[in-house]
Formats: sequence, C-alpha cells, structure tokens
Amino acid sequence: MSLVESFNTYRSRMNDKILNSDSLILKRIFNLDTNAYTEGSLDVKSKELIGLTCSLVLRCDDCVKYHLGKCKEIGLSTSEVNEAMGVATLVGGTIVIPHLRRAFEYWEELQNV
Amino acid sequence: MSLVESFNTYRSRMNDKILNSDSLILKRIFNLDTNAYTEGSLDVKSKELIGLTCSLVLRCDDCVKYHLGKCKEIGLSTSEVNEAMGVATLVGGTIVIPHLRRAFEYWEELQNV
Amino acid sequence: MSLVESFNTYRSRMNDKILNSDSLILKRIFNLDTNAYTEGSLDVKSKELIGLTCSLVLRCDDCVKYHLGKCKEIGLSTSEVNEAMGVATLVGGTIVIPHLRRAFEYWEELQNV
Amino acid sequence: MSLVESFNTYRSRMNDKILNSDSLILKRIFNLDTNAYTEGSLDVKSKELIGLTCSLVLRCDDCVKYHLGKCKEIGLSTSEVNEAMGVATLVGGTIVIPHLRRAFEYWEELQNV
Amino acid sequence: MSLVESFNTYRSRMNDKILNSDSLILKRIFNLDTNAYTEGSLDVKSKELIGLTCSLVLRCDDCVKYHLGKCKEIGLSTSEVNEAMGVATLVGGTIVIPHLRRAFEYWEELQNV
Amino acid sequence: MSLVESFNTYRSRMNDKILNSDSLILKRIFNLDTNAYTEGSLDVKSKELIGLTCSLVLRCDDCVKYHLGKCKEIGLSTSEVNEAMGVATLVGGTIVIPHLRRAFEYWEELQNV
Repeated sequence: MSLVESFNTYRSRMNDKILNSDSLILKRIFNLDTNAYTEGSLDVKSKELIGLTCSLVLRCDDCVKYHLGKCKEIGLSTSEVNEAMGVATLVGGTIVIPHLRRAFEYWEELQNV
Repeated sequence: MSLVESFNTYRSRMNDKILNSDSLILKRIFNLDTNAYTEGSLDVKSKELIGLTCSLVLRCDDCVKYHLGKCKEIGLSTSEVNEAMGVATLVGGTIVIPHLRRAFEYWEELQNV
Repeated sequence: MSLVESFNTYRSRMNDKILNSDSLILKRIFNLDTNAYTEGSLDVKSKELIGLTCSLVLRCDDCVKYHLGKCKEIGLSTSEVNEAMGVATLVGGTIVIPHLRRAFEYWEELQNV
Repeated sequence: MSLVESFNTYRSRMNDKILNSDSLILKRIFNLDTNAYTEGSLDVKSKELIGLTCSLVLRCDDCVKYHLGKCKEIGLSTSEVNEAMGVATLVGGTIVIPHLRRAFEYWEELQNV
Repeated sequence: MSLVESFNTYRSRMNDKILNSDSLILKRIFNLDTNAYTEGSLDVKSKELIGLTCSLVLRCDDCVKYHLGKCKEIGLSTSEVNEAMGVATLVGGTIVIPHLRRAFEYWEELQNV
Repeated sequence: MSLVESFNTYRSRMNDKILNSDSLILKRIFNLDTNAYTEGSLDVKSKELIGLTCSLVLRCDDCVKYHLGKCKEIGLSTSEVNEAMGVATLVGGTIVIPHLRRAFEYWEELQNV
C-alpha cells in the first residue's frame, strides 16, 4: 500500500472510532475543523497554505500529509507548495527539515495517485 | 506482537540500558519520575489524568501510551479517559488529533490485554 | 491594581472584542472552551487540574493564571495545586520553572482577593 | 508611546546590534528572512498570512506583531486577518488565545497609526 | 533597577517561596538542577553552552538570562556566546529572533554589572 | 539494514530531492546549516553538543540521530554524550525520555558501524 493510501485508510478508520465515541468535545472539535477550511473571507487556497505551514512548524507529519493531500486536490503547484514549506522551515528552523523530507516524499507520491 | 506488548518490551529494554549507564542525572530523573505519580496531596487517578493530558498536549505518543496503560490499570473508564483527552485536544488544538488517533487505537488494544 | 485584577480586566476587555468581531471560528472555539470545563464524566476539580497542568507544560502564563483563579474558586488547596504543578514541572522540565515562579506569585495574590 | 511605536523602536535598535555583532550565522539568517517574504511563486499576501499564522501557533507575540504590521501595510482587511487567526487558533488550541488577545489589541492600534 | 538586578531579585525571592513550600517534587527538581551544571564528564563551559542554547530554542527568556549570567561569570567571550546563539537560532528558526534581541540586550547589561 | 544505515540512506536520498527542487529558501537554509557546525569561535565538539542537546529538547529523533552520528565521528565518548543528554532531559523534562531511549539505541548501533 502506498504512503498516501495507508495514511488515508488509517486516518478514516480512527476518525470513525473517535466520532463514534461518547466524547462531545471531540465531536465538536472535528466539526469545527471541517468547517474552518471552507471559503470565507479567505479563499480555500490561502487556508490550505495556512494549514500546511502551521502543521509544518508544529512538526506534525500526519497534519502535513493531510494538508498536502488537500493542496494537491485544489490544484496548488509544486513550486507554490515548496515555497510555502520554505518559509515555514525558515520560521521553524532546521528542526523542521526531517519533516520536510517526509513531506517531499509524500508530495511526490501524491503526483502518482 | 500487539502494540501494547511491543511498547512495553522496548520501553523496559531501553530503560534498563539507560539505568545501567553511568549517567547520574538520568538515574535521578527516572527515580523522581517513579515517585511523582504515587498518592500524595492528590490521588493516583488525578495524577494519571495529569500525566496523560500533559503528554497529549506535548504530543508525545509513547508518553501517552504509558499513561493510558496506567489509567487502565487503576480502573479509569473509557468515558473518563475520552473526556480528559477531549479537554487536552481543545487546549492543544487540532494538531493533537493524529496523536489522539493513536491513543484511541492503543486504548482499544489495552481492553484486550 | 493587583496582578489578579489587571489580569482579569485585560482578559475580559479583549475577550469582548474577540467575541464582537466577525470571526465565526473564534466564537465557536470560545463557546467550546466554556463548556469543556463543566462537570461530565470527570468532575470540575479533575478538569481544572488538567487545565492548569496542560497550561503549565505548554508554558502559557495567562492560561496558568486563569486556571489558578478557577482552582481557588472551586476550593483546591495549596498542597493540591503545588503537587499538580510539581508533576507538570517534572513532565515539562526545568524550562517550566520561570512559569512556576509567576504561578506561585499569582496563587499567593489570589489568597488575598 | 503606542504599542506599535515601542515595538518598532525596540526591534530596530536590537536588530542593529545583532547585525553589527560578529555573528556570521545571525547575519545570514536575517538576510534570508528579509528575502523570504518577497513575491515568488506565492504572492506577498499569501506569505504574510503564512508568517502571521505560523507565528501565532508558535505563540511568539513579537513575531505576530511584526506580521500584523506587514499585513496592515499590504492592505489585508480585518476580516481576512481575523479569519487567518481563527484557523491558527483552531490548529494551535486554546493555548493560543492569550496571544490572540494581544494580537487583537495590536491590530486595533495599527488602525490608528 | 537594571534588567540584571531585577531578574536576580525576583528569581531569588520566588525560588525561596518554592523551596519553602511543601512540594517534595519541586524541591528535588531544584536540587537536581543545581547539581547538573557542575563539572562531570563535560566541563562547566560546555554545560552552560548547552543550558543557554536549549533555553534559547525552547524560547524561555528567563532561562536564557540565567545562563547568560553564568556564561559571563565563567568567562565566556561575546564571540563564543554569539556563535552559540547563532547555532541555536538556526536550529530553532526565526521564531527565536525576538528572544535573541532580549538576550543581546541582557548580555550588554551584564558587561556593566 | 541497520538503524544507522537506513537513517543515512533515507536522509541522503531526500536531501538530494530537496536540493534539486526549485526552492531557493530551502537551498540557502541547507547551505547555512552545513557551515554552522564548522569551527569558529567555538570548536566543533561544543557545536555538536549544542546541536545534539537542542535536537533532544525539541524532541526531533532524526536530528538527534544525525548529531549522534557526528559526535561519534569526532570522537566524543559515551560518558560525554550521556551527560549532555542528561542535562537536556532535565531541561526538557520527562517528555524527552522516549526520545532518549531511541538515542541510546542509536548510539549503541553507532559503536558497531
């Protein structure tokens, strides 16, 4: 199974379990999360770039993968994604680089999906 | 080997190596860590909930696993654990969600141990 | 003006501005935040200890102050609060100590309010 | 002196000292930082939104102030800035809220400069 | 009162309160902290550089101030301190820069004590 | 393949991809990173100890591995490395311990390369 497929499968399976649990707080956070990235005062592209770079500086590989998937879906180019990740790496420091490696690998796989 | 078993095996093996090393600081930190979660002004349950949620907001999967194991051992219910993790996710943000997925998976496995 | 009074005044004034802004996401996060610390599967005391210690390991002075105020309000003792902060300092490291100093100062002032 | 003025004055004064020091690494980081936010594959607006939100999730008040100043300069609206900060608060959690308060205060002052 | 004096005064006063509290965990952490920076396999200079740079990447102004004070005391030169802080800024990213400004200011004041 | 070999292989492969991309910011960060650890006002040993401990408190396993590899290369002893990691664990808290386990495992493997 590719990186993309295994990420999506695990994510869906566990999100279902979380949403089927009795935790009201978690359900509301998930609901809020779904709505937050839709078009508002900012367009979807700006919001996904925010989601991607915040995930990268906070060094959350799975969050980066999720937003890379969305960036691909909405048609962001490799140059745009790389430049955004460049700014994030500058802000977050060289400590971000290992996460950048995994992001590059995942983005490459996304081109073949 | 289950997630629980492989976590515990690796943890024990490496803790032994650390404690058999020549590092006095590390030995004292480990000793302090063992004592900190015993009953004092707060009961063990309150302390484990603190350990679990601090681990979750700091996004340390292994620390979360360890405290989930203790929460199970001392008889915390799924509702209690989920609510604690809900508060932690609110405090720490959606960046905590991937760690929450792994926490739900591990808690599920703990029920079958 | 005391630390407690100036913290509360500024917090209320700015929260009003945030809630009177046009940001739907922020309004929903604030609403969720208010509800999360009410009694559920866990009692209010456990939740405030979680709020306090998560704030301390994440090193957010204002969040610590807010939860110390709530801990005082619901009748937690100095020993309970100190022990919770001791566990948090162990989890978060000596980097937490400067925040602990400010927490001790604020807790002391809270006794005189 | 206003918040804006005192921030800018201190920042300029200390940046001069850093750049006049003998540290080659620091000079190169500062130089890179200046260039990173100019138009490239992404426009300046997208980059400033990235700078602002990454600063907010990493909870750096001074970095937030700097990017709010730039956002004002390039003509971002209050709605756009608030929505970006809403997404960042969701990603980073309620721990971001105290920084959001200071960001709202600073943005308000920027309107009067 | 200078930055150095006010930092030291507040630090001593609050450390006394913490050590006079009933928290055994905190007392042991403070004791461990005092011992950790004495000469062992590494000399004091190496340990203070570690303390300084770890404090800087974790963005704790008070911890940075404390270690700058020690670096001055044991005779580290401005070039050595600046180079160490340069590496830390590279590792931790531009988000470290505001803390660097305050570190430069404090180091300058330390020269006049 | 050993931990050391698989780390180095993946790191080299992905670094090549990043450097062959069109991102000027990333290229400049990588270039700066290479130069920062060479001898200057501080010797290479001091700089590698800084790199190692900053990586550990920021809890970046891959960064820790990289600097452990360099520490081995330049002849640091196990006692020196362990003591540095002890100080870092004290600064960063027990949350660092899972990363310490993986660091001990990797250091052990490095002795057999």
